Amino acid sequence: MAKPIIGVMGPGENASPDENEMAFALGKALAQEGWIVLTGGRSFGIMEAAMKGAHEANGLTIGVLPTETALNSSEEADIKILTGMGSGRNIINVLSSHILVVIGMAAGTASEVSLAIKCNKKIILLHQDEITIRFFKNIGTYKVMVANTVEETIQSIKDYLRVTPPLKGRTSYTMGELEG
Amino acid sequence: MAKPIIGVMGPGENASPDENEMAFALGKALAQEGWIVLTGGRSFGIMEAAMKGAHEANGLTIGVLPTETALNSSEEADIKILTGMGSGRNIINVLSSHILVVIGMAAGTASEVSLAIKCNKKIILLHQDEITIRFFKNIGTYKVMVANTVEETIQSIKDYLRVTPPLKGRTSYTMGELEG
Amino acid sequence: MAKPIIGVMGPGENASPDENEMAFALGKALAQEGWIVLTGGRSFGIMEAAMKGAHEANGLTIGVLPTETALNSSEEADIKILTGMGSGRNIINVLSSHILVVIGMAAGTASEVSLAIKCNKKIILLHQDEITIRFFKNIGTYKVMVANTVEETIQSIKDYLRVTPPLKGRTSYTMGELEG
Amino acid sequence: MAKPIIGVMGPGENASPDENEMAFALGKALAQEGWIVLTGGRSFGIMEAAMKGAHEANGLTIGVLPTETALNSSEEADIKILTGMGSGRNIINVLSSHILVVIGMAAGTASEVSLAIKCNKKIILLHQDEITIRFFKNIGTYKVMVANTVEETIQSIKDYLRVTPPLKGRTSYTMGELEG
Repeated sequence: MAKPIIGVMGPGENASPDENEMAFALGKALAQEGWIVLTGGRSFGIMEAAMKGAHEANGLTIGVLPTETALNSSEEADIKILTGMGSGRNIINVLSSHILVVIGMAAGTASEVSLAIKCNKKIILLHQDEITIRFFKNIGTYKVMVANTVEETIQSIKDYLRVTPPLKGRTSYTMGELEG
Repeated sequence: MAKPIIGVMGPGENASPDENEMAFALGKALAQEGWIVLTGGRSFGIMEAAMKGAHEANGLTIGVLPTETALNSSEEADIKILTGMGSGRNIINVLSSHILVVIGMAAGTASEVSLAIKCNKKIILLHQDEITIRFFKNIGTYKVMVANTVEETIQSIKDYLRVTPPLKGRTSYTMGELEG
Repeated sequence: MAKPIIGVMGPGENASPDENEMAFALGKALAQEGWIVLTGGRSFGIMEAAMKGAHEANGLTIGVLPTETALNSSEEADIKILTGMGSGRNIINVLSSHILVVIGMAAGTASEVSLAIKCNKKIILLHQDEITIRFFKNIGTYKVMVANTVEETIQSIKDYLRVTPPLKGRTSYTMGELEG
Repeated sequence: MAKPIIGVMGPGENASPDENEMAFALGKALAQEGWIVLTGGRSFGIMEAAMKGAHEANGLTIGVLPTETALNSSEEADIKILTGMGSGRNIINVLSSHILVVIGMAAGTASEVSLAIKCNKKIILLHQDEITIRFFKNIGTYKVMVANTVEETIQSIKDYLRVTPPLKGRTSYTMGELEG
């Protein structure tokens, strides 16, 4: 089994301190499971917090950036995929993640949830309000899951990966291969 | 003033007969104003209905397609922009429209509304339910407008174009230049 | 038969006066045949010259822009497709054209010729040097044609469209439908 | 310094056995330097050979795929970036690589070299013929380098990275963080 890539999506500048804290805890928990954390790669909000959390547990992080260069991208993104496509890159975040977790809500985030439903990906709405849950359940009944804690989220991902593992790939890596 | 391009977004196969009828009436009304109708270019649902309506009033239509070829695209799309990007092309629908009108709701449509908010475009939600309106108002207060009829929609677009006309371009075309 | 869309590709700022003159003559000749001219939509070089030529013969022009807004785009582009994808939009130029004509050479242009070969499009290299012709013939023998004059180019396009017409679409447009 | 990402580009099905062998040796040599190997991610040709070589030296590999799913992608790609953009993804290969090496030549490859020149990336043409070198030197004098062996290529990359290191990032990774 290749290493699962978990997308963590959410607002940038407008993320609340509570949301950033939850993203950090989530990123750390994902890395503790040995999963790769993928975000939009920017240097603030849910993206940076989740990758910082992943690094706390020595995880690997991928940032899929809207820009043509790495200028102003997050230093927490180990692998920077540069698209030069602006918000057009959101589809790549969605397609490249085995499953997505959403913390907080903003326009870019909503486009990622919507594209994930469109592309038949599973999405976990973490700690979202009633309106958001009802809206996305209306357009993607079977694809949208709800969680209130990081623990529930990790459990849902485990359940999902048990049934739908990533396609075959390398199963182990040797020490030092990622040392810069 | 260049000719305004109005994006009409909505479900494909899952559009209801009422929604398709409203899309046809909207497309016709847009063309009667001399505006160009832009859709996702596929051969069903809101896309095809709006372009068919535009043709009823001799309008010009643009289809921005997800595919690499024009196979299975709508014959109602006069100009076919082929992207080969799947749902990644939704950002192009949004950016290329001066303003967007949304009829019905589905995952792809929701991604277009979300991207439009993200990209600072105005969106008119036509005949949408309470949950949808509240969700998008929450993430895009000043960009999301609501209308219940085609007439209201046309009036809102006129108001918008008066304040924010398209950038300069040709003002007239001669007969026959589009005859195939 | 829908109206054919002919892509005209070539350098921007670095186009020579002779190349721009040829692009103008080509754009005019294409429009005289009733064909739509598609370019990268920028306000200089082969793009602007070809669209200006098309307008001289009352043709319709499409500009597929790398930018998110129409700022600094050519006023000669009647329909502006905004992609926000930078040079990533070159694939859309290629896919949306029924056949491509190339005047002058630069890096962006070379990427369009290469992508056209990759996507099984026919390309006419107009007035190109020996090295360019040999390079592209090496990687796309059956897809790359050579012409030395606008007249030869028009004849090659006619021959091509006779065998491979655009997919079905509207056959006529009424006067005034494109008047701004 | 973040880990450098080296793009290795070249033909798929049509790569010659010699080219594939050279790609394998190159991928191995890149990984021995501690660099990440990025390719188009497909299961044949230069892409697969370079990633297989990288794995021989316990390197990390990234595949930026044209498809929406990982079906038929190379098992040698540790991290699969799924774009659903067809050959439109070539710009992402280019932008995400700090420097590119090209083995063999085909239409998709030529588009990557051209886009790299357009985007101001350095490209090393490895063991290419006279026509190819002259064509790309004509359109990108200062960006195109030539090498005849893997050793020369590695030296050129070292020289380049000394002057232009990747932007700041993590400097070390702990054992096991990539174990599946």
